[in-house]
Amino acid sequence: MDSKRTVFFVSDQTGVTAETMGHSLLTQFDGLDFKVSTLPFISTVDKAEEAVRKINSVVAGSGARPIVFSTMVNDDVREVLKRADCLYLDFFDAFLGPLEQELGQASSHALGRAHGMTNLAAYTARINATNFALANDDGTQTREYDRADTILIGVSRSGKTPTCVYMALQYGVYAANYPLTEDDLESRRLPPALEPHRQKLFGLTIEPERLHQIRQERRPDSRYAAIAQCNFEIRAAEQLFERYGIPFLDTTGCSIEEISSRVLERKGISRRTQP
Amino acid sequence: MDSKRTVFFVSDQTGVTAETMGHSLLTQFDGLDFKVSTLPFISTVDKAEEAVRKINSVVAGSGARPIVFSTMVNDDVREVLKRADCLYLDFFDAFLGPLEQELGQASSHALGRAHGMTNLAAYTARINATNFALANDDGTQTREYDRADTILIGVSRSGKTPTCVYMALQYGVYAANYPLTEDDLESRRLPPALEPHRQKLFGLTIEPERLHQIRQERRPDSRYAAIAQCNFEIRAAEQLFERYGIPFLDTTGCSIEEISSRVLERKGISRRTQP
Repeated sequence: MDSKRTVFFVSDQTGVTAETMGHSLLTQFDGLDFKVSTLPFISTVDKAEEAVRKINSVVAGSGARPIVFSTMVNDDVREVLKRADCLYLDFFDAFLGPLEQELGQASSHALGRAHGMTNLAAYTARINATNFALANDDGTQTREYDRADTILIGVSRSGKTPTCVYMALQYGVYAANYPLTEDDLESRRLPPALEPHRQKLFGLTIEPERLHQIRQERRPDSRYAAIAQCNFEIRAAEQLFERYGIPFLDTTGCSIEEISSRVLERKGISRRTQP
Repeated sequence: MDSKRTVFFVSDQTGVTAETMGHSLLTQFDGLDFKVSTLPFISTVDKAEEAVRKINSVVAGSGARPIVFSTMVNDDVREVLKRADCLYLDFFDAFLGPLEQELGQASSHALGRAHGMTNLAAYTARINATNFALANDDGTQTREYDRADTILIGVSRSGKTPTCVYMALQYGVYAANYPLTEDDLESRRLPPALEPHRQKLFGLTIEPERLHQIRQERRPDSRYAAIAQCNFEIRAAEQLFERYGIPFLDTTGCSIEEISSRVLERKGISRRTQP
């Protein structure tokens, strides 16, 4: 109908689950563009009525009814939302029934369980892992490597830092990272600080052309960003990985989520917390 | 039946969506404990058959059939999984149909769209925001505050850093953070570096008792962790927020997701990227 359909993610809590699920579904529709909006903390009938007004105002304006992805645990609040002029898809509504039957137990219909503090120990693990990732970013210190689940190595801007932070926040995994410098690469030797931790190492690499683009944004026309330099560093890093038998991954075209999942899978690291 | 049901998150991609959705649903069942396992990158019939063997081996061992949450875009692969001895809930299977009808378009059944690199610009925004959060963590520099969407302020260990990193990774939001030191608190004045950016400030506070626990873990029995010190800092910080009309949030019992959603909502910051 129109080229840019409006999509709402509505939740009685943060909206993270509705966003994640809704976005996954929408990526399956090629060539369509969506105007997205999140309405979090819709936890009362009053707030739901206000949300319905927002949703209906889109129809009044553009003519195409919006798509609403929601995760509502309260039946009364959900009933209000259902009356909006939209395609209404509620993830809890669809799946709680079969789960209740399977588990032989009614669901609690309690707010704020996902992404809440239901499990303080798991939550603290995520926070501690995040602090670990930051304290052990970019080789700033190496004395805590004994506590690391994995140590990512690679040249500057190969994706180490965001991956470490993501693995910490999402899975409570302790991930440090160490940059391979030009000196390291020229010596063709593993940096001495990494030697005792060879089993924990995982290498990241990237296509030199893409690395050049990324570095170019950061320091335009520098020696650091030059394609020849990128070529040299990547070739030397990959040779180092191969020489020492370090598993590695080409991150070109990989999202942080993909890199993280691959690292955990290949290193056999279990996800310490549920997301 | 048994106390610890086995749960699998199965995906042809990273498994992040299946984990997020499945975990949200499971938190609605009080008092049940689950043994969870993620099987990512199940993208072929062969891999699906291997996954089925893993799932069925649980039944052979314990007697209670597992629960499988999956996000499979390929019908053939999904059909294989469906044959496993489990409660099989596929999120795509349930919702792609109504969406196809609503959008008047068949879904692409293409792998790796969610959490992939479908949108390089949005992805780059997340990475750049993450680098921004790290470079502007803990008041280490203030010269980039012009580019910040928000600046979180609060005493040490009130939750600033993980929240900034999360908002960057999940939403591409540029969030800096600045710690309120004892000097700042005693002067009862906003630190000069923050003055030009008052509209961007958001305060985090926390119950003194909880702060004491967190600091105690970090530096046991220090003056820094003493309950009297925590009491003083929190009271002074809250007074500062009130004096300057800075919106603030008590993070005690709030997850990073909740804090982030509240900050974005109250500051009116739109989520720059889809998760």
